Amino acid sequence: MELFWSDRISEGLCILDADETAHCVRVLRHREGDEISIIDGEGTLYTCVLLDTAGKEARAKIVGAQQNWGSHPYHLNMAVCPTKNIDRYEWFAEKAAELGIDIISPVIGDHSERKVFKPERLKRILLSAAKQSLKAAVPKIEEAQSVSRFIETSPSGQDCLKLIACCFEGEAPRISINDALRSFSGREIIVLIGPEGDFSQKELELAVKNGFIPIHLGESRLRTETAALTSVEAVYLSKI
Amino acid sequence: MELFWSDRISEGLCILDADETAHCVRVLRHREGDEISIIDGEGTLYTCVLLDTAGKEARAKIVGAQQNWGSHPYHLNMAVCPTKNIDRYEWFAEKAAELGIDIISPVIGDHSERKVFKPERLKRILLSAAKQSLKAAVPKIEEAQSVSRFIETSPSGQDCLKLIACCFEGEAPRISINDALRSFSGREIIVLIGPEGDFSQKELELAVKNGFIPIHLGESRLRTETAALTSVEAVYLSKI
Repeated sequence: MELFWSDRISEGLCILDADETAHCVRVLRHREGDEISIIDGEGTLYTCVLLDTAGKEARAKIVGAQQNWGSHPYHLNMAVCPTKNIDRYEWFAEKAAELGIDIISPVIGDHSERKVFKPERLKRILLSAAKQSLKAAVPKIEEAQSVSRFIETSPSGQDCLKLIACCFEGEAPRISINDALRSFSGREIIVLIGPEGDFSQKELELAVKNGFIPIHLGESRLRTETAALTSVEAVYLSKI
Repeated sequence: MELFWSDRISEGLCILDADETAHCVRVLRHREGDEISIIDGEGTLYTCVLLDTAGKEARAKIVGAQQNWGSHPYHLNMAVCPTKNIDRYEWFAEKAAELGIDIISPVIGDHSERKVFKPERLKRILLSAAKQSLKAAVPKIEEAQSVSRFIETSPSGQDCLKLIACCFEGEAPRISINDALRSFSGREIIVLIGPEGDFSQKELELAVKNGFIPIHLGESRLRTETAALTSVEAVYLSKI
């Protein structure tokens, strides 16, 4: 099954941009009258019939719609410090999108070597991963911000599980991510993953003060991107 | 902590090859008398003192040894069809080694697009992943063979859990990998992961006939390498 994406959907019509049109018409050779599937990136799958394919931007008539198509039974915000080698971050994002996440929040920690983050490439990777894994919702990328600011502005209350994975023990002892997930019945989950140099003591204390539960991911020493994906896997696997 | 590797360990001495010596002496500037840590790739960590660093191959005197250093509480053989784009297979192998696996068995399925597999690059990736994640044992790579041959020569009996992840339902209904792992108390686990085109009906039937349990990995459509890593994560997370 081949998915196309459009952010211009109104009055029963979907308009594909130049890239999607080229892929649909030039590469896959779809013609007027063909039925195609278009996602809006927000969770809805539209079944459409191609109207015209001559121009740079193909138009398609909506004949059906399914909301929450390819959705998952949780809402996961992965707040992960961008890695020194950005390919590793992009790899994590692709795999996380295949499994199912909702938000990627690039956060800059006290020990982060990479202080700047450009989202453009990542957006394309997330869109293609969502299409490839048959999901109508494409994970959102938040603006980059400091770990401290992310912690201080995170939602409070019992209906959101907030976890921070760190490699050292602070005041509050760490529990395994499985135990943390088992003791939570809600949908909303946030996992905070530090940079290669881990969180600072100050960041960990601030997180705990703001309701984050310190967790560990087992005995293995994992790279930042592997720790991040392992957290997504733990959430994903806890629901299958 | 920095690890070096040697396959020439005898009579209380470790000899580092030219690459490891260059890294130890030229890059990290270790000198005679320095204490260094050397793994044998089989599970033992040796604490050593550098004797001479002048030549192409440094020698170190063993002053301590720890067996099963950085080991994990299971024995996992991942039999995975090499992906069309081999980078994805190498990526899976690196992450699997970080988490902890024992054997990678490249298997060629009826629907495999890639029929040949060269292990040289993968060996280097597995060694560096083991060193990076502080494990003294480096995962082994089996000779490439057909899926059918792998199935027919797989161990029989109750002390080994044999799983096959496929995207379609055969005669025997699929269960989730979690349920399969929960119902097993042994150490020995084999997971069979098919190529982009999935297993053939014939391969699935042969596997079931030989005691493999058909499993699914949840609702998401995962790429071959993501399905393989998700299986490793399921085993790893089931033990933390």
